[in-house]
Amino acid sequence: MKRCRISNNVIRRLPRYLRHLDDLQARGIERISSSTLGDQLGLTPSQIRQDFSCFGEFGQQGYGYHVSALREQIAAILGIDRGHEAILVGVGNMGKALLCNFDFANWGFRLVSAFDVNPQRIGEDYNGVPVRNAEDLESFLQQHPVEAAVLTVPREAALSTAQRLSQCGVTAIWNFTNVELPACGETIVENMHFSDSLLALSYFVANRNNEEE
Amino acid sequence: MKRCRISNNVIRRLPRYLRHLDDLQARGIERISSSTLGDQLGLTPSQIRQDFSCFGEFGQQGYGYHVSALREQIAAILGIDRGHEAILVGVGNMGKALLCNFDFANWGFRLVSAFDVNPQRIGEDYNGVPVRNAEDLESFLQQHPVEAAVLTVPREAALSTAQRLSQCGVTAIWNFTNVELPACGETIVENMHFSDSLLALSYFVANRNNEEE
Repeated sequence: MKRCRISNNVIRRLPRYLRHLDDLQARGIERISSSTLGDQLGLTPSQIRQDFSCFGEFGQQGYGYHVSALREQIAAILGIDRGHEAILVGVGNMGKALLCNFDFANWGFRLVSAFDVNPQRIGEDYNGVPVRNAEDLESFLQQHPVEAAVLTVPREAALSTAQRLSQCGVTAIWNFTNVELPACGETIVENMHFSDSLLALSYFVANRNNEEE
Repeated sequence: MKRCRISNNVIRRLPRYLRHLDDLQARGIERISSSTLGDQLGLTPSQIRQDFSCFGEFGQQGYGYHVSALREQIAAILGIDRGHEAILVGVGNMGKALLCNFDFANWGFRLVSAFDVNPQRIGEDYNGVPVRNAEDLESFLQQHPVEAAVLTVPREAALSTAQRLSQCGVTAIWNFTNVELPACGETIVENMHFSDSLLALSYFVANRNNEEE
């Protein structure tokens, strides 16, 4: 596949494109022009063409984009077909919410185990994911190395847990702890920013009120 | 304040600007040029100038942006100073995770009550937010009208709860249910998309591996 360096901003738009293409497919729409797609997503047609041109040519002049082909390409670029294996550390409220309600498999991740320090949680099972003793993190990862971890421990355990994961070869952390983890070797940290979404809501509410004033 | 119609894409970037300016402030940085800011955020200087010009003139030629002034302006545009009141409906894992760990006040929201159907949860209190019987939603909102609700009920209750909220005058919903809520009158729905963040992580992992191959 033709590739160029993709900017962080394009990467952040790809999941939105993917979700939108899923919606279009679900509604039976087979092709779409860059201008219609732009209208629907609040982007200019030229920005969309530029984003997609960065990883190959999908569109055809006068035809637009083939929805399912574009969807598959974006999914592949995002690595959904890679079969990432991951663990989850911290089976508190946030951890349980993810274990019970988030469809990791749909996004190309397979959770192989969860870990917690609480004896009452150890031995539990959520959708087929067993909760193991956090003391056994190192020995487990030695036997079953994984690349990614979902970090849902309490704030105060965030840093030490991230360090342990890093030492065990986990090089990608999905961080829900609201603690800024320092750059650590080759570890990639993706922070889950709930606030970005709430602030967008705040903006829409504030501006509706402005218009009414 | 000078205003123009702000595109959805700019709105989505504002929270990221805000977080980044908070980081800069915490590091004692008082001013920054659009090119440095662009480098740090993966945006072009002209895009940054264009984004900010949309809601007024902050920067000065040759000086750059004053970090704290820009931060306050963006916070105001996002409506953080509006004092939104909100309720939370559904005190399951996700609801508890938010009640216990998410700092609503920091983002301009005040939670006045939570609601649940489970008798064991009713009467509990999380950081000063009481859990009331979901049956009393309508009577509570009649006495204490609020604009916004955090929706953390199970999937199967998402639609009916959203409708009840809408009928009670709640016109902004922060939706964690993974259920697409239909456009309903003037209600604004902001969906929390965990997947966008996980897919960005997937991309970074997949592309690191590409480089290594």
